[in-house]
Amino acid sequence: MADTARAGTAPADPALFAGMANAIRALAMDAVEQAKSGHPGMPMGMADVATTLFARFMKLDAAAPDWPDRDRFILSAGHGSMLIYALGWLLGYEGMDLDQIRNFRQLGFKTAGHPEYGHAPLVETTTGPLGQGLANAVGMAIAEAHLAARFGEDLVDHYTYVIAGDGCLMEGISHEAIALAGHLKLRKLIVLFDDNRISIDGPTALADSTDQLQRFAASGWATARVDGHDPEAVARALEAARESDRPSLIACRTVIGRGAPKKGGTAAAHGAPLGAEEIAAAREALGWPHPPFEIPDDILAAWREAGRRGRAAREAWRARLDASPQKDAFEAALKGDYAETLAGAIREYKKVLAENPPKVATRKASEMALEVVNAAIPDTVGGSADLTGSNNTKTKGLDVLSAENYAGRYLHYGVREHAMAAAMNGMALHGGVVPYGGTFLVFSDYCRPAIRLAALMGQRVVFVMTHDSIGLGEDGPTHQPVEHLAALRAIPNLKVFRPADAVETAECWELALASRDGPSVIALTRQNLAPARLAHEDENRCARGAYAIAEEADPDVVLIATGSEVEIALAAREKLAQGKIRARVVSAPSFELFRLQPEKYRARLLGKAPRVGVEAAVRQGWDLFLRRKDAFVGMTGFGASGKGPDLYAHFGIAADAVAKAAKKLID
Amino acid sequence: MADTARAGTAPADPALFAGMANAIRALAMDAVEQAKSGHPGMPMGMADVATTLFARFMKLDAAAPDWPDRDRFILSAGHGSMLIYALGWLLGYEGMDLDQIRNFRQLGFKTAGHPEYGHAPLVETTTGPLGQGLANAVGMAIAEAHLAARFGEDLVDHYTYVIAGDGCLMEGISHEAIALAGHLKLRKLIVLFDDNRISIDGPTALADSTDQLQRFAASGWATARVDGHDPEAVARALEAARESDRPSLIACRTVIGRGAPKKGGTAAAHGAPLGAEEIAAAREALGWPHPPFEIPDDILAAWREAGRRGRAAREAWRARLDASPQKDAFEAALKGDYAETLAGAIREYKKVLAENPPKVATRKASEMALEVVNAAIPDTVGGSADLTGSNNTKTKGLDVLSAENYAGRYLHYGVREHAMAAAMNGMALHGGVVPYGGTFLVFSDYCRPAIRLAALMGQRVVFVMTHDSIGLGEDGPTHQPVEHLAALRAIPNLKVFRPADAVETAECWELALASRDGPSVIALTRQNLAPARLAHEDENRCARGAYAIAEEADPDVVLIATGSEVEIALAAREKLAQGKIRARVVSAPSFELFRLQPEKYRARLLGKAPRVGVEAAVRQGWDLFLRRKDAFVGMTGFGASGKGPDLYAHFGIAADAVAKAAKKLID
Repeated sequence: MADTARAGTAPADPALFAGMANAIRALAMDAVEQAKSGHPGMPMGMADVATTLFARFMKLDAAAPDWPDRDRFILSAGHGSMLIYALGWLLGYEGMDLDQIRNFRQLGFKTAGHPEYGHAPLVETTTGPLGQGLANAVGMAIAEAHLAARFGEDLVDHYTYVIAGDGCLMEGISHEAIALAGHLKLRKLIVLFDDNRISIDGPTALADSTDQLQRFAASGWATARVDGHDPEAVARALEAARESDRPSLIACRTVIGRGAPKKGGTAAAHGAPLGAEEIAAAREALGWPHPPFEIPDDILAAWREAGRRGRAAREAWRARLDASPQKDAFEAALKGDYAETLAGAIREYKKVLAENPPKVATRKASEMALEVVNAAIPDTVGGSADLTGSNNTKTKGLDVLSAENYAGRYLHYGVREHAMAAAMNGMALHGGVVPYGGTFLVFSDYCRPAIRLAALMGQRVVFVMTHDSIGLGEDGPTHQPVEHLAALRAIPNLKVFRPADAVETAECWELALASRDGPSVIALTRQNLAPARLAHEDENRCARGAYAIAEEADPDVVLIATGSEVEIALAAREKLAQGKIRARVVSAPSFELFRLQPEKYRARLLGKAPRVGVEAAVRQGWDLFLRRKDAFVGMTGFGASGKGPDLYAHFGIAADAVAKAAKKLID
Repeated sequence: MADTARAGTAPADPALFAGMANAIRALAMDAVEQAKSGHPGMPMGMADVATTLFARFMKLDAAAPDWPDRDRFILSAGHGSMLIYALGWLLGYEGMDLDQIRNFRQLGFKTAGHPEYGHAPLVETTTGPLGQGLANAVGMAIAEAHLAARFGEDLVDHYTYVIAGDGCLMEGISHEAIALAGHLKLRKLIVLFDDNRISIDGPTALADSTDQLQRFAASGWATARVDGHDPEAVARALEAARESDRPSLIACRTVIGRGAPKKGGTAAAHGAPLGAEEIAAAREALGWPHPPFEIPDDILAAWREAGRRGRAAREAWRARLDASPQKDAFEAALKGDYAETLAGAIREYKKVLAENPPKVATRKASEMALEVVNAAIPDTVGGSADLTGSNNTKTKGLDVLSAENYAGRYLHYGVREHAMAAAMNGMALHGGVVPYGGTFLVFSDYCRPAIRLAALMGQRVVFVMTHDSIGLGEDGPTHQPVEHLAALRAIPNLKVFRPADAVETAECWELALASRDGPSVIALTRQNLAPARLAHEDENRCARGAYAIAEEADPDVVLIATGSEVEIALAAREKLAQGKIRARVVSAPSFELFRLQPEKYRARLLGKAPRVGVEAAVRQGWDLFLRRKDAFVGMTGFGASGKGPDLYAHFGIAADAVAKAAKKLID
């Protein structure tokens, strides 16, 4: 590509450049001071690097913040949020103004303490929990490479830049992310490491001796070290990185809080206002006589020009898109609206299931549903954290996405649950890709911080989590989730699906992919389950969250179960029928969707009779269905190693026990 | 030390050695075959390495499995559990016999699918979730170095050996663990990497290109690569590692499933039985004509001799201990029974508090309590994941534990929540040390897999988790836990404490440290709280889990709150009193302990009047206290960035709202 905006254009006048960087510093220290809270040190330390990046390299157009082929900028060290807000205003993004900056960290403003996706412009992802942004960026770079392979570099050709701090690189997720990026040779991923040697507790030497360059090199990255206060050196390193055939780390040696004469270079500049005296001294030291929140015209003009420097590139891109035969497919991928397509495909698939209802594990049912989904939607990119054969996530005809074939639609993430989840977040945020990825349900703990951020950001990411109970058997309590359904259901804006058979699994996949405003977990069994839904129904019954899978007009008891325990509840119903006890069986594949149903529907479904809940997990969360006097058949502690059926018997999760509990309630 | 048992003694006769290694292989493949489930590949691949380690280096005495100065062996690649069971039986440990091995992975036997702490001998920690064992081992090596510095190498001088696989080294926690170990120069930590280049999905090259030697070197480790099937090469590497001044990685190039002619060297040997035909072929290839579970006498005798080779060393150690002036202190540290000491110290401290009840954040109250605890108990080792000043975990007089001063009692863990938690598990398992460590409550997600294992293993580890609600204010939703209390309360055998003031905080610390059978989380505020318990009481009232902090004999309503919301409930009581409504206020610092109270106590405390629960978190889990008709004042979604008091007002968690909810219930 020959976009002029993409090359490192000629340096600005050095004095003007210094003023541009100092504008960031002043805004950061003054906003933090005004808020009496925040982190001035990082924006002040990285001001020169950020100015070099944004004024000379970033392909952006402030007038089109969502332009698909823009370069991405990820502030992984999210506590330095004032950097991004200062840049947003200086570059002229709509929605960012001085009023926002003056009200940094105040309720009702976009300038949240940490950058929140969907609030301020320039925020490509929510960051703050360290290391997440870096791993999101890996996902964005994967999406870029994949879409470039799919649609051509005419339409997709942009860099992903990251600013990461010591903390990001100490977090475990950073290892998973950089190893994955290095393996995939994501050459357009460039990480600027704010190597200021200061953490919250003091010098990083208190806790760390890692040679980061050597470490990144070990994972296949190109590496460089520069003086982060020498814009020319930074620019040269960026130019080299952009030409590299591998992802690049540029360690920028900086002084935290650069400009603050006493606190600069120390942990005191990290996470607290500098104080009036130190700020006055910093103004002196920086040669910045301007009052708080005032930026001289020439400096602002230079920044605003930087905000427009990608405009020509964008217009050229737009023209290419308009002329492209792939325009429709590209725009459809970015739009990502599959509701109708999916509804039709799943409906037809359910008809096929009804012809010969299969007795399969729901993980296998998930694979069967995915065959339909992946054929109907060309934008899915699946994967697994080294459990492909166990999670059943790879369908026929999905090629592996690798450094040799970015067009592939299946990722071997390696044993990296956390980076997988965070990379999926990045892919979803990038757009054009719908990610799903698998691991065991118990290892949702390993990626929980990323699942939470998907929920907070409202991203459509599907976590395929198999081996969802003691039913997995011999692997034992380390691998048997008992508290994970409850723990996941506790996360706001996350849908947790636990389907009971192949039909429900298909319906849950449809619902997960139609959930454009949040992530889903689909919990699936290792063990085979009898089909529960035999007759075809067009309706997606799982959309109700819970419904009568075995109706009984005037029940003596209502049995409510999820997933593998629906089979048990249905068997208990048979047993009860022998004693002339009428039981309605409710399947509850999604507590979240049930909670959204009208009160009338909920009341009618659950009725007034006694209730028994059945789930091979802890009771927490079941008060959605159960009253104090109702019964619950499930787990109260950790599982054990043994054959799955032996464990169900041992822990008393069986039709007999359910029937007994029901009778006790009725008597 | 001149223990003969410690040097790499002369090699056994090569044919005998090969037989010893093949005994492991045969037991592994036959037990997995019998169980129809399990992982033969790892034990077969690492049999030569393990035989070298155990027959020539490990300081052990099978007759005294818990001897404090034994070398520790951690099978981080826990799926290879048959290795440890085979070794346990071959070496002659009590409690491991052929019946156990024949019933590998069956309910009721010690030979669980993954090694479970407290079940089979030789299992120093529960492993299976990858990377955990490696990080546990770092904690054990820290404990060893610390206790050696404290009590002298006469009493404490042992190695910690780890077998780790590709998966362990791909997990993020491995980065945190090796960076910490390298920084601390834990020279007696030796990791044997089963470098077989095979993962579940296939060759590791599918997902990884990391140069592990370079990576470990970047973190300050000594590294070596050897042929894992050349016992002399392994022995030489072990000898060099034992002399190193740094932790050591020995990458052992092995063939997974070594001996199995067709499946060896492939993913097919990893996680499934080899099958009768392949096992027969392996017997042929290995020259192992013996029937399943039969070991020739000479080979068993050689193994049993290895099981005794540390006996003289142990006896010498015992003599040194008996002669040591430190004997009592050393044994007390290992015993770790502080109940009485603590009860007295906390009681006296509460008297001081009552004289001048402080209005402090509970994180500050925790620091105040820790001053008492750390003075009363010499065995605590505190720390924080780079939030020392925020978590208030470092008390006066605690020196930093570093490579220069292992005697220190405070660890700067770096931004490594996961390794911190897992290392604390390792310290607790090692014994002689009582670990506590801090981070923000929201980052409990980052260390959740290790918290879970502490609960599963029943280890006394205290997680100090501050900034426990929206009350933290400006840092915003990424840092504000809303679902974490529920998610932690869902973990079996974990105690979650949320104290309301300085008195409760002290009582909760006492309870956490007296909980010898499981871990605790203490959730603490950032913001100041008014004292709620003004008059001194000798009794530890928090031991009840919940109690009336403001009594009312015949209440119209019962307000139940935890932590910072107790203040709100007390204020609501005042407001209600103005309308002649009598409210009892219940403080509920521990749901787990309340659940253990007699039904009579619980019924009397909660009464029959309407109830309002108050907690700045999601409602999940509150059905312990609330009936369907009761009210809850709390959070229903994520928080926001703003001043703490503004957020409480915005989300309606206030005395007014509580009083209003109470009135609505009464009317």
